[in-house]
Amino acid sequence: MSKALVECVPNYSEGRRKDVIEAIVAPFKDRPGVYLFDYRADEDHNRLVVSLVGNPDALQDALIDSAKIAQSHIDMNSHQGAHPRIGAVDVIPFTPISGITMEECVQLARSFGERYHQETKIPVYYYEDAALIPERKKLEVIRKGQYEVLKEEVRTNPDRKPDVGPSELHPTAGATVIGARKFLVAFNVNLGTTDVEVAKKIASYVRASSGGFCHVKGIGLALEERGMVQVSMNLVDYEKNSLYRVLETIRMEAKRYGVSVVETEIYGMVPAGAILESAAYYLQVAGFDPDQVIEMRLLKMMGEQG
Amino acid sequence: MSKALVECVPNYSEGRRKDVIEAIVAPFKDRPGVYLFDYRADEDHNRLVVSLVGNPDALQDALIDSAKIAQSHIDMNSHQGAHPRIGAVDVIPFTPISGITMEECVQLARSFGERYHQETKIPVYYYEDAALIPERKKLEVIRKGQYEVLKEEVRTNPDRKPDVGPSELHPTAGATVIGARKFLVAFNVNLGTTDVEVAKKIASYVRASSGGFCHVKGIGLALEERGMVQVSMNLVDYEKNSLYRVLETIRMEAKRYGVSVVETEIYGMVPAGAILESAAYYLQVAGFDPDQVIEMRLLKMMGEQG
Repeated sequence: MSKALVECVPNYSEGRRKDVIEAIVAPFKDRPGVYLFDYRADEDHNRLVVSLVGNPDALQDALIDSAKIAQSHIDMNSHQGAHPRIGAVDVIPFTPISGITMEECVQLARSFGERYHQETKIPVYYYEDAALIPERKKLEVIRKGQYEVLKEEVRTNPDRKPDVGPSELHPTAGATVIGARKFLVAFNVNLGTTDVEVAKKIASYVRASSGGFCHVKGIGLALEERGMVQVSMNLVDYEKNSLYRVLETIRMEAKRYGVSVVETEIYGMVPAGAILESAAYYLQVAGFDPDQVIEMRLLKMMGEQG
Repeated sequence: MSKALVECVPNYSEGRRKDVIEAIVAPFKDRPGVYLFDYRADEDHNRLVVSLVGNPDALQDALIDSAKIAQSHIDMNSHQGAHPRIGAVDVIPFTPISGITMEECVQLARSFGERYHQETKIPVYYYEDAALIPERKKLEVIRKGQYEVLKEEVRTNPDRKPDVGPSELHPTAGATVIGARKFLVAFNVNLGTTDVEVAKKIASYVRASSGGFCHVKGIGLALEERGMVQVSMNLVDYEKNSLYRVLETIRMEAKRYGVSVVETEIYGMVPAGAILESAAYYLQVAGFDPDQVIEMRLLKMMGEQG
């Protein structure tokens, strides 16, 4: 078995029927090499988001099993929900965690896409880093008009032809978007002022869209009940734009307004590498190797054992 | 199987015969729940140091198997080496890593000591946190005069009676010292000066023996070839005396002499908790939970799967 670890967060168009949700998730339980971190169904979105980490081979097998179950229970012709979607299994993104490069993760997404279509007959679009057509890097381009529009346009508009499969959606399961993307770290910096303009200005200094760091998305918000403001960010490439670098830049900019960093928040999961790199920076550790961390070494050895 | 992880670093009185060394280490290989990080034999010391991490139950079984092999090959009456020792299996320290408290680790050491004596007939002394007699917290008290002196004194001097077993050493394997202790982090801080007195003074400010932090041992050294000096430390309780607190105290003291911290070194292994705590301090993360780190969560789930 491969020593690689990938994250995969498949999204399914079912957020209401508890029995169907449990059936879709079942193939991820008690399966060697597959770790089910979390699954959350949203009734308004009528959508299920599953958070998995595991070995690529084991994950792929489980994803196929789960997709077949979703396919047998979900009919897109009667599906309603607030979240944009084009299929019963709407998106399957793979994210490299360790022992695998982004290039390998792209190959994984593409070969999985071929197998997925063979076994389910559901057409596949590739997105993000796995996109074959540059415009399809963006999910919203592929999902434009959602299931209802796509099922018509796919027949006549060559721009909407699936990357794998015929120019026709699956009659009940629609289509699935499969891709590879980097891990996204949700990082918020709370500032000791009630002036939201400070957070908005600083967000504009650090985010890519205003000319800041290339892999930072961010906005400034008021945290009214707490009497603070927040620079709320997604670090879309934590290796290129480290947590410490973004934080210290914000601290430096905030000084201009006589404002301090009160605290920060890491929302949700974070890869160890993102934290260890910042620790090594602040502790000034020369030649720090993540393998020096007992738990990291152990995880690697467990992977090697099987 | 228990979800706890402990480190164990058994020391054997054999550092020269390659076949014997390999035989002693063999029970730690390909054994579920036991992870052999490293083993190093020193010919001058005539001693083997094995670095293990694992599940307490699996580790104990492997340690018994290994001790029996060591016992069958090593005769303390003909053993010579530069390192102090009293037995073929000289020391077996257990260190809590995760999912186990120090109190539980002490119980582990003591129940292992009983079983060890039953299966090998080798008398046992308990040391460090597992000591039953306060003086025996210190290994050097138990090992005083080494094998040659102890084997005589044990018969007549009640102060030297083993904690488990009769007032007589094993005729060839001597005795074994078993204990529980906290993880020791080797942390060095290099300063940008050639004046070794600065490092010596700062070492005296931070170490317990001169009234500094209660769980820091340290000395000041010259790194002559590098044109720097070093505060070389062992953090014997990284939870009470964190890396960041010790580093920032040294930085603050060094300023008085106009000296900067050039870099630090973490020598050998370090538990994730020690690094994550410092990262959370510097990144000012509110409510940071190690379970947010994908790899830490994964390791826990792998432990739960067995």
